[in-house]
Amino acid sequence: MKLYSAPPSGNSYKVRLLLALIGQEYELVEIDMRGGENKSPDHLARNPRGQIPVMEDGNLTLWDSQGILAYVARKHAPEWLPLDPAPMGQVMQWMALAENEGVYGMARSRAVIRLNRPWNLEQVQEHGRSGLEIVNGGLAGCEWLVGDRPTIADIAVFPYVALSPEGQLPLDPYPDINAWIARIKTLPGFVGMPGIDAA
Amino acid sequence: MKLYSAPPSGNSYKVRLLLALIGQEYELVEIDMRGGENKSPDHLARNPRGQIPVMEDGNLTLWDSQGILAYVARKHAPEWLPLDPAPMGQVMQWMALAENEGVYGMARSRAVIRLNRPWNLEQVQEHGRSGLEIVNGGLAGCEWLVGDRPTIADIAVFPYVALSPEGQLPLDPYPDINAWIARIKTLPGFVGMPGIDAA
Repeated sequence: MKLYSAPPSGNSYKVRLLLALIGQEYELVEIDMRGGENKSPDHLARNPRGQIPVMEDGNLTLWDSQGILAYVARKHAPEWLPLDPAPMGQVMQWMALAENEGVYGMARSRAVIRLNRPWNLEQVQEHGRSGLEIVNGGLAGCEWLVGDRPTIADIAVFPYVALSPEGQLPLDPYPDINAWIARIKTLPGFVGMPGIDAA
Repeated sequence: MKLYSAPPSGNSYKVRLLLALIGQEYELVEIDMRGGENKSPDHLARNPRGQIPVMEDGNLTLWDSQGILAYVARKHAPEWLPLDPAPMGQVMQWMALAENEGVYGMARSRAVIRLNRPWNLEQVQEHGRSGLEIVNGGLAGCEWLVGDRPTIADIAVFPYVALSPEGQLPLDPYPDINAWIARIKTLPGFVGMPGIDAA
């Protein structure tokens, strides 16, 4: 299994984190985003979006973090993705929040501030804050987003929530999020990324 | 099973379409979006996003279309969501495209034009077009997005692709998309929505 990734990418980190937590070996290929390698013909042949992460495993290529998380869980760590209707629906609901408020709110706020990307900061911060409120509410009285153990929903939601302060979205108002971040950091095998220190 | 929905909502239509195609009975509750019913305390108690669709089934409430599609498939129509690692990863990848380029590109373009929403039209149209190109490429030589039968990936991607012309994103450049739209409309039980006629 080969993973194309780059250190500051929260979406790539989702995959690296799951692979680390389940102890799965893989080959890491760093893509030089600043040098534009993600828009090279070779990379566009792997991923029509010109983004990372991309995973190759045998003949299979997947170019979206949600798809890769589901694939890795089904293949190597099925306990991370429950299949019963209710918990599976809940996992998919939180993964959708990671793609919506996570990417278009929290991650875009960070990209405006760090990379000067051309989005309306007020709009993306408002969207990010609404996501943080929903995640905090969903964690009230719960250790994990779905059921009584971590799932790929936690993995998908965690990075851009934890990186929100880099988008000037402070986490102080969200005690249940802060407890959950600390809990995730104690999982055996946890790895960090720039902006997310190990515990 | 109770579904909160509104006629012009493409995300609600995803759920109504799957339920129609599998012949599953349910109770439909129309939410008056123009009257602001989606922001009422009753509805916010169901859905912290203040949006539709919302599904209630017994004690379970799900407030995201992706989560609802996965739940309905696992409970009533498992053939619509393959569980083997590769096809499940591919289904989740396309569902992520539906949440990303679908909602934040195609659907936002439509919302700017129809509802005068405050997003940058050029930005959201560019994002939508990149999604249309990826979907068209993914359908080249294929009848369905994943494998040899329709899955919830087709259901999730279909509505905002088919509604793209309402966001001034014409579908003429995408022959494989047009063939796939026609194919979906021939599925037994197919229902339309405003902007998507039955065949």
